[in-house]
Amino acid sequence: MKPTLHIVKIGGGVIEDTKKLNALLQAFTHLEGAKLLVHGGGKMATDFGNKMGIVTEMVNGRRVTNEESLVLITMVYGGLVNKKIVAQLQGMKCNAIGLTGADANLIQATIRPKDPIDFGFVGDVTKVDAMGIEGLLTLGMIPVFCAITHDTNGQLLNTNADTIAAEIAVAMSSQYETTLFYCFDKKGVLKEVSDENSLIERIDQTSYEQLKKEKRIADGMLPKLANSFDALHRGVSRVCIGSTPMLNDVLYPRTTLFLHS
Amino acid sequence: MKPTLHIVKIGGGVIEDTKKLNALLQAFTHLEGAKLLVHGGGKMATDFGNKMGIVTEMVNGRRVTNEESLVLITMVYGGLVNKKIVAQLQGMKCNAIGLTGADANLIQATIRPKDPIDFGFVGDVTKVDAMGIEGLLTLGMIPVFCAITHDTNGQLLNTNADTIAAEIAVAMSSQYETTLFYCFDKKGVLKEVSDENSLIERIDQTSYEQLKKEKRIADGMLPKLANSFDALHRGVSRVCIGSTPMLNDVLYPRTTLFLHS
Repeated sequence: MKPTLHIVKIGGGVIEDTKKLNALLQAFTHLEGAKLLVHGGGKMATDFGNKMGIVTEMVNGRRVTNEESLVLITMVYGGLVNKKIVAQLQGMKCNAIGLTGADANLIQATIRPKDPIDFGFVGDVTKVDAMGIEGLLTLGMIPVFCAITHDTNGQLLNTNADTIAAEIAVAMSSQYETTLFYCFDKKGVLKEVSDENSLIERIDQTSYEQLKKEKRIADGMLPKLANSFDALHRGVSRVCIGSTPMLNDVLYPRTTLFLHS
Repeated sequence: MKPTLHIVKIGGGVIEDTKKLNALLQAFTHLEGAKLLVHGGGKMATDFGNKMGIVTEMVNGRRVTNEESLVLITMVYGGLVNKKIVAQLQGMKCNAIGLTGADANLIQATIRPKDPIDFGFVGDVTKVDAMGIEGLLTLGMIPVFCAITHDTNGQLLNTNADTIAAEIAVAMSSQYETTLFYCFDKKGVLKEVSDENSLIERIDQTSYEQLKKEKRIADGMLPKLANSFDALHRGVSRVCIGSTPMLNDVLYPRTTLFLHS
């Protein structure tokens, strides 16, 4: 039997909130077996950007990573948020090591094609070095990844944290029984975004297609679910979407995704 | 015979200058045997601080690291500078991994006593985890440390990069034949700071004491020399101070420090 590996992605509403982040990190340290963390930077990049007069350029409602934004993201995601999380985890006696995908060449990416829309320095993951991550785990280190990768030619690239988490989970699945947790400040996938009681506890491939057809799922949740089913198809054992308590309590309400019911 | 380890500290005038930094990193990749890099952030922290309206507080001519400055330093040293260097080294096929002392608990420190002067979040190194660094080297990773440590209780601390380099060199000396390079944009220790021809090629403990007495050494150089002789006393094999070409050319002018001539 393969050993277990938990991949925990911290998302919206948790990173910016000191209390919620602290609770999440505490819960993370209590997870048994091998584990690693992936985080974005939430609204902090925008906040610091405003202070520094860096304007966020938007195309079709999506953020463009120009050179200035990349500097900002490298400072906020790779520096401030990542190192604060690492120091906090160390304070909880969890031997965290903070990383971008450039570090030890762990996550390679290519810049997204400029056609039809030029998103700037945005990367799509091409390779995760499972052996390298395994090496760190073997040393007793707990990787903490931020949402930055590189093109292996010297260029850092802004990369979606959900995708990074899914790609790591997929890459590690040959060696580990992997569980991917998307952890945020909601109970899981909701039928009505404003109603925490409308939690969908189980989604399989068939009901996922149905929910998409009915346009029942909020825009932000769609790529997360696409990532999740893609990960399940490529060898990840379980994907769970929900809030912090699900990490330590298997009975806590959450959305669990399956290929087949 | 012990294997060799080169510890290269990048200092003033190199980090801010794209060309000089590139030349330094190229030279670094050509160093044979085990190696690691240590860097500060030069004037970049001050520049970004100005953009963000963070004022550098000075006491007796020395910088105080208040909470705002620590945020700034974590972003600039730990994020921007560190990750750019890592990506650049990766582009040169050098398997760099960027680190603070908090990462994997590699460098522990205590906050400097607030008496007689409160320098804020400044740390003095108490322990370097040589086994942890050795573990990364064994994985084929090249550590790149920035000038940040932690107190093991969740607090990041701004720490002198020269001292970090010296403490790492000392800690690694039980396993390795260590050479510590202080690399900056001068040829080495100069008798007259403005005259590159006044290079002092060799300094031993006796001539060092003499130079101090004569007040021949510039203020900035004094702690570097103190660090160096301390490192030599504690097991480091060689300390060299000079400019980039010294890394690959043993005949290139530099200052070499010895305990005894």
